Parts: sequence; C-alpha cells; structure tokens
Amino acid sequence: MSEKLQQLKERLGEVDDIGHASSVLSWDQQVNMPPQGNEARGQQLATLNKIAQEKFIADEVGRLIEDLKQEFDGTDPDSDDAALIRVASRNYDKARRVPPEFVSEQALVSAKAFEAWMEARSKSDFSIFRPHLEKNVELVHKYVSFFPPGDHPYDTLLDDYEPGMKTEEVKAIFDGLRPKQVKLLKAIAASRQVKADFVFKKYNEKKLMDFGEAVITKFGYDWNRGRQDKAPHPFQTTFSVDDVRITTRFESDNPLATLFSTMHEAGHAMYEQGSNPAFERTPLSGGTSLAVHESQSRMWENLVGRSMPFWEHFYPSFKKTFHAQLDGVSLKTFYKGINQVEPSLIRVNADEATYNMHIMLRLELEIGMVEGTIAVKDLPEIWNTKMEEYLGITPPDDAHGVLQDIHWAYGAIGYFSTYALGNLVSAQLWEKIRKDIRDLDSQISSGNFTELLGWLRKNIHQYSHKYEPQVLMEKVTGSRITPEPYVRYLTKKYSEIYGL
Amino acid sequence: MSEKLQQLKERLGEVDDIGHASSVLSWDQQVNMPPQGNEARGQQLATLNKIAQEKFIADEVGRLIEDLKQEFDGTDPDSDDAALIRVASRNYDKARRVPPEFVSEQALVSAKAFEAWMEARSKSDFSIFRPHLEKNVELVHKYVSFFPPGDHPYDTLLDDYEPGMKTEEVKAIFDGLRPKQVKLLKAIAASRQVKADFVFKKYNEKKLMDFGEAVITKFGYDWNRGRQDKAPHPFQTTFSVDDVRITTRFESDNPLATLFSTMHEAGHAMYEQGSNPAFERTPLSGGTSLAVHESQSRMWENLVGRSMPFWEHFYPSFKKTFHAQLDGVSLKTFYKGINQVEPSLIRVNADEATYNMHIMLRLELEIGMVEGTIAVKDLPEIWNTKMEEYLGITPPDDAHGVLQDIHWAYGAIGYFSTYALGNLVSAQLWEKIRKDIRDLDSQISSGNFTELLGWLRKNIHQYSHKYEPQVLMEKVTGSRITPEPYVRYLTKKYSEIYGL
Repeated sequence: MSEKLQQLKERLGEVDDIGHASSVLSWDQQVNMPPQGNEARGQQLATLNKIAQEKFIADEVGRLIEDLKQEFDGTDPDSDDAALIRVASRNYDKARRVPPEFVSEQALVSAKAFEAWMEARSKSDFSIFRPHLEKNVELVHKYVSFFPPGDHPYDTLLDDYEPGMKTEEVKAIFDGLRPKQVKLLKAIAASRQVKADFVFKKYNEKKLMDFGEAVITKFGYDWNRGRQDKAPHPFQTTFSVDDVRITTRFESDNPLATLFSTMHEAGHAMYEQGSNPAFERTPLSGGTSLAVHESQSRMWENLVGRSMPFWEHFYPSFKKTFHAQLDGVSLKTFYKGINQVEPSLIRVNADEATYNMHIMLRLELEIGMVEGTIAVKDLPEIWNTKMEEYLGITPPDDAHGVLQDIHWAYGAIGYFSTYALGNLVSAQLWEKIRKDIRDLDSQISSGNFTELLGWLRKNIHQYSHKYEPQVLMEKVTGSRITPEPYVRYLTKKYSEIYGL
Repeated sequence: MSEKLQQLKERLGEVDDIGHASSVLSWDQQVNMPPQGNEARGQQLATLNKIAQEKFIADEVGRLIEDLKQEFDGTDPDSDDAALIRVASRNYDKARRVPPEFVSEQALVSAKAFEAWMEARSKSDFSIFRPHLEKNVELVHKYVSFFPPGDHPYDTLLDDYEPGMKTEEVKAIFDGLRPKQVKLLKAIAASRQVKADFVFKKYNEKKLMDFGEAVITKFGYDWNRGRQDKAPHPFQTTFSVDDVRITTRFESDNPLATLFSTMHEAGHAMYEQGSNPAFERTPLSGGTSLAVHESQSRMWENLVGRSMPFWEHFYPSFKKTFHAQLDGVSLKTFYKGINQVEPSLIRVNADEATYNMHIMLRLELEIGMVEGTIAVKDLPEIWNTKMEEYLGITPPDDAHGVLQDIHWAYGAIGYFSTYALGNLVSAQLWEKIRKDIRDLDSQISSGNFTELLGWLRKNIHQYSHKYEPQVLMEKVTGSRITPEPYVRYLTKKYSEIYGL
C-alpha cells in the first residue's frame, strides 16, 4: 500500500476510534448512566469530540489527501482506495469550512434551545421555544454561508444527511408523491373501517420483548455482535462492525410498538453488521446515508413486519403467547388491525399511509425557514393549517403540533426528509428484490429470511459508505430515488385491506 | 486564578476526560460487550490511552508545571493548588521517564503473557507461563532502570501503587505482623472448630443481590451517582465523582461471597463518591493509594459486614429471606460460621485471619524476583514450601498455587502488598473511629451508618489524592501504617469466636 495512504488510514483510524468511543459514552448515557452523571459525561463527550475534530482537520491530513488525490489520479475510481480518498476529501473539505468557534457556539445555543423546547413542549407554549428556534435558524443561515452557494441554500443542509442530494430533486419527488398519497388517504377515509381494539389492550412487556428478540434472531440480527437494551427512546448505535447495538422501550398505551420498533432498529443494525469489515476504522464504514439507512429499518419493520406472509408465520405463536388479548381475533383481522390507517397528530405514531404527509409538512416549513419565506413566529399557524389540509385534523395545542419533534431544538434542519425518502427507497428496493427472489412471500411465510438478508448484504450493506445514495440506487435498481414504487406498494396494500 | 494554573487545569482536565472515557469503555467491555466486540474495543482503548499519554507528557505541560512551581514557591504547601502542582509534577516526571516504545512493548508482552497464563492455569502447567513471566520480570527490571536508584529497586514499583512508600518500611511492617499472625492461626487450628455448613448451601441469586443492595443503601452508597451490574469479576470503577459504579458476581459454590463482595466494592465506591468535587478533572480526584482504597473496602466488608453488631441488625431479615437455609441457625452460630478460619489455597477466598499470609508470601517472591535472588523457574517450589510454612497446606498443583493470580501475567509487580496494607489501615482507622464514635457498635446494631460514613468522609474521603497515604495516616491517626491495631483486632475477634 502507498505509504501516504497508510499514514492517512492511521490518522483516520484514530479519529474513527475516538468517534466510536464517543458513541459508547452516549449509549451508556441513555441506557445506564445514573441520574447525576450527566454533567461530567457532557464534559467528557465535549473533550472527545473536540479532539476528534482537531485530529481530523489537521493540516497534515489535508496534505495527505491532496497528495493522494494526485497519486490516485487516473486509477480506477471504483476501487476502495479511490473511494476512501474521495469520501475523506469530501468530509475534510466540509469540516474545514466550519470554524471551531462556530461549532462551539452552535453546541451551546442548541443545548439551551433543547432545554427551552423541553419546557415549551411540556407547557405547550411555543413562545418559550420561539427565540431559541430563531437563533437556531440564524445559525443555520450562518452555517450555509460557509459553503459555496448551491442551487438552493437548503442543499447545503440536505447534503449533510444525504450526500449529493439536491433540494429540487427532493421537492420533485414529494410533489409527485403528495397528490397520490392524499388521494389514497381520502379513499381509505371513505371506506369501512377496520377493527383494531385488540392492538391497544394490555400486553405483558417481558413477553413482547422476548417475542421481538425471537423475531429479529430469525431475521438474522447477530447477537454475537450486538445486544438490545431498554432506553427512553429506541435507537441503534455502532461501536464497530462487530458491536452494533439496539434499544427499545415499552409504552403501555401502545404496547405493540415495542415489537415493531425492535424490528425497525434491527433493520438499521443489520445494515451496520453487514458493512464491509475491510472498511473498518475508515470513513467508508457504516451506512451511506440516513435515507438508505431508514430504508433498511422501514423494510424490516413494515414491508416485512407488517406483511401478511410475516404474520402467516408468526401469528400462531404470537396468538398462543397472547391468547387473552387475541381471543377470537383471526389472522386476517389481526393483520388489518396492525395496519389500520388513522390520521393522527404525532409523527412517530403514524401508520405507513399517513407517515409521509407528516414529513412533507416539515420539509415545506424547513425550506421556507431556510429561504426566509416563513418566519419562525408563524410556524404554529402554518403547521395547523397544513395538518388540516393533508390529514384533515387540527392539533388541539402546539405540544401535539409544531413542538412535538426534537430535531429543530438541537438545530438539525434538513434531516426530516430522509425519513420519507427512506420509505420510498424501501419500496423501490423491494420491487427489485421481488424480481430477484420470486418466491419471497413463501420464504417469509415459512420464517425464512436468509435469502432476503443475503440480497441486502450483497446489494446494499457490503458497499457501506462507498457510494453516494443516488449512485447506489441507480446501480441496484437502475433508477434514482422515485416515489412510484412506494405509491404502488401503498395502493395495493391498502386497497386489499380497505377493499378500495 | 493564575493564568498558567488555569491552562494547566485545562490540559489535565482533557487528560482526565480521556482517562474516564477509557474507563467507560473498559467497564462496558466487562459488563455488556457482545463476544465479538473485543478486537475493535482493544483498538479504541489503545488509541485513547495513546492520546491521553501524548497530551499528558507534552512539553507544554512540563513548562507550565515548572513555571507554576516557581510561582507557588513559598506559598502555603497545604493549599489545594500547591497539592495539585505537586501531584501533577510527580506524575509528569514519572510519565516522562518511561519511553513510549517501552509502554508499547510492555503492552504487547503482557498481552501475550496474559494469554499464556490463561492456558497455563487451565492446564496447571507452569512451564507454559514461565518464559512469559521471565520476560515480564525482565521488563520490570528495565522499567526500574528508567528511574534514579532508590534504597531498593522494588521501591520504584511500590511507589506506583503506594506513593511515597518504601520497601524497607513494608518489610518491617510485615516482619512485625508475620509471627503474630502465625501464632494466632496456630491457636485457632488447635481449638474447636465452628459450624459453617449453612454458608455453602444453595442460596437464591436474585434474593442475595437484592439483600446486598439493601445493605449498601443503608451504608450510604448513593444510587443517584452509581449502579451495580453483574460481571465475571467484581470491581469498582469511577467515571466521575457523580458516576461511581460497582459490579458483583454470583458463585453457586460460595453464594454468600456475593453479599460480601457487594459490601467490599461499595466501600471502594463510597470513597470515590466522597472525593472532593472541587478536585474533579484534576489528578487530585479519587483515592490516594491502593492501600487506603483497600482499607475502605475491607472496612465495610469485614470490620462492619462480618461484625456481630452488623448481624444483630440484619440477621432477622436475612434469616427471614433465607429461612430454609438458616433453619435452626442462631445469630451466634451464623456469626461464627461466616467468620470461620480455614487455611486455604486461594487468596481471593481467604478469610480475614489467613488473608495476609497469602500476601506476605507473594511480597517475598516479588522482592526476590526484583532483587534477582529468586529465579522465575524456582517460583513453584518456593511457593509451595512457603504455603506449608505459613498455612500448613501444600497446593496439589500450580493452578491452585503460583498460577492462581492474574497480576504477574499483566506485569503488575508491586501491587500485592497493598491488599495486606489495606487490612492494616482499616484496623488502624477503626481504632481511631471507635475513640471518636463511642457508641459505634450500638449505631451499627441499629442499622445506622450515617456517623461512620460521615467520619470517613471528613477524615479520609474528602482529601482524595491530596495527601500521600502515609501523610494522611499520620494526620488522621497520629502514626504511619503499623500492624498492631490489626493484630489486636484479629486476636480479639478470633479469641471470642474460637474461645482462645
């Protein structure tokens, strides 16, 4: 190997080690840490992040990257080494543009905004959060100003989560999606409703957890390289390709969410566990973007976990475990019940048919804030108007409206669209998978997920961060991200369930 | 504050943060980590340790320390700032003397020695471990050579664990202790034995854990700043004064060990929780030495936890919880049973009366290896001879003899004596405590530990690392470490139990 490449890898490896050490500290903070440990932990994380940043943006790293770009000029651009230099260069350029003082200021401002948001949400009082969100938006404008102007100021933000993705492209995707999804929702609303009371009965927490673990074991989640714990919010985190953990929670008023959230996080985790081990300790390791990551979690949660073939396999044992709750509930009734469509106020509880509407609303508001066409003070009113327009319901208060999500509190603007894109990607991949695995349904209904996971490993997981998401999608499906497969999926699924 | 002091504190604070991050990663490695996570974790720990070392031994740190020594020359040597500069200077000088290549070599050699030791112990074959131990001893000689010659080459090693302690002093202490402890053991062996079969019955793990947690809650272990988990070996670890954790384990053939080990680790943890918060992120935080640390753990485990007043309070509820195991067992019988003296082969299972004999044996061998008067190849024979001499028993094989402890495998020579010194310190403090708290026994027998913990907080814990152990002992008890109180304690306790 080139001596300089070796040197670059050593430096990036250290940065990667520190980043993963941070992840361990954050995981522990959410899973184990005693109440009073928070202040010191925040300090420790700040120190690690500062050192990782210093080590990454060091002049010597830039020199190595520049030298290597010349050294590899004209070589195969598809080689792993070329990809490493490309991704490292991209990340380095972005990191160097943002002054360290700005990073500190943003950390400070968003910490305060987070506290204000907590209070505002609990009191359902947007005015408490408003000045902090205004400050966050101001910093977002400043952040954008560090970068060369793109086609749209929102491009810079989007690029942090979806490398290479453009605002116009996302807008076009959602413009194509919106009318079709609204039309479907209206048809569902006009049809006879399904029975779903059994979904919200009391379920035993331990038994649900055990069932969830049995399911993801069958999926192929590797417990020798992972574990599941309880945490206030479900998440997945990676310490190395050989230590990929998930968390779950139990909500007594929505017990089955535990099960679906376990499948969701396991979907993320299996992507990370399938990353190419040769990419460890380099920026090529892990998933390529939030949307592709979300496609994996939503695929296992929804396209697999809320499908009829899945429950053909699992319902008998599930019903046996929860016979009191499911007495007299047939497989078909159960399947319809867990797929009930019900326009609701809270994004994280939304069903498959309404979920994207929540995202489109947020995306429009974000773009407006970044363009300067929507003022923070007007957000609650616009939010409520759009909720009425898209879902036919109006939040009773801001806690159930504009204050519900944490993202804007910590300054993350540009993130939301990846959730909806993830849904689209999941369906687009699924159409390809169904072509490649003709008897997929019967494999799933016999509890066999080996070929499905193998397909994902081969076509998505192993490439890790090597390809940008749109490049990967073209490579795998022959097309960039497009809404049609998702519309086809939703229409077929809900036409059957609601007899449209 | 002096600007340079501020700068030094910032730099030491970063080093401290990285050290505590390492501790989180190590804790997780032992408590949570999935089987395959080990390789990446080792790499992450190596990176963190390397960065902490680099940051600590930086020239700039040395310059700041030198400047501050001049700046503080003539000021109150007992001030916290003066102590900080003194301890930082001491640690810096030691760290700078050891070349980084040596640190790497030792890490590599001891990792191999550890593997060999594991195999040697499992096969009870000293020859597998011998060349690795020889290499470890060679490196220890090299390590000693980096430092100015002391009165004895072992001084350098001892000083890493007991700052300021000299080999001659430790030898003198043990020379004073040995004949008295041997005499006591002979008297016990010649007396009527106590009944202890109930100690080794089957006990429910969960109930024992719960009982242990209830006990240390009463002691004053602060769960808002700590937690207990299961791990292969019990230990205590500190992430900050506000996050001090302990682990425990359950051994089915020695179930009550769970209870005593919980008290032991809580003793360590309460010391750390009682550290002066103003010392956080400086080298003054945490306990002053291993012996003083061990005095706290042994005090709560033995002087409190194996005492009659303690069980006067706890035995009724303990007997209620374990009525099947303790049917017909009176408080007095129980008390005698858990204090049974039985010369045994394994140090970690030794009772209070025999424990120090195990340590003295190891200390003599260590000093011999460092002096060059004992060759590694002769260790098994010398070990067995001394076991016969001190405890009247001979190991059936080396797994139950010279191969039982992990310390020499990872190159830690000079550590063992701190265990025995900890016992002596615990009894020496205890005599002072009894003078200061006249009704200590009746407080304990009513389950009230507030005044005892308060005494320790005020006289030991709050000083953290500010004073060297012998300075602290003189300050608190008026005398450096001395064996007499421990001999008095053992003699009194066992004379009563065995009717000597």
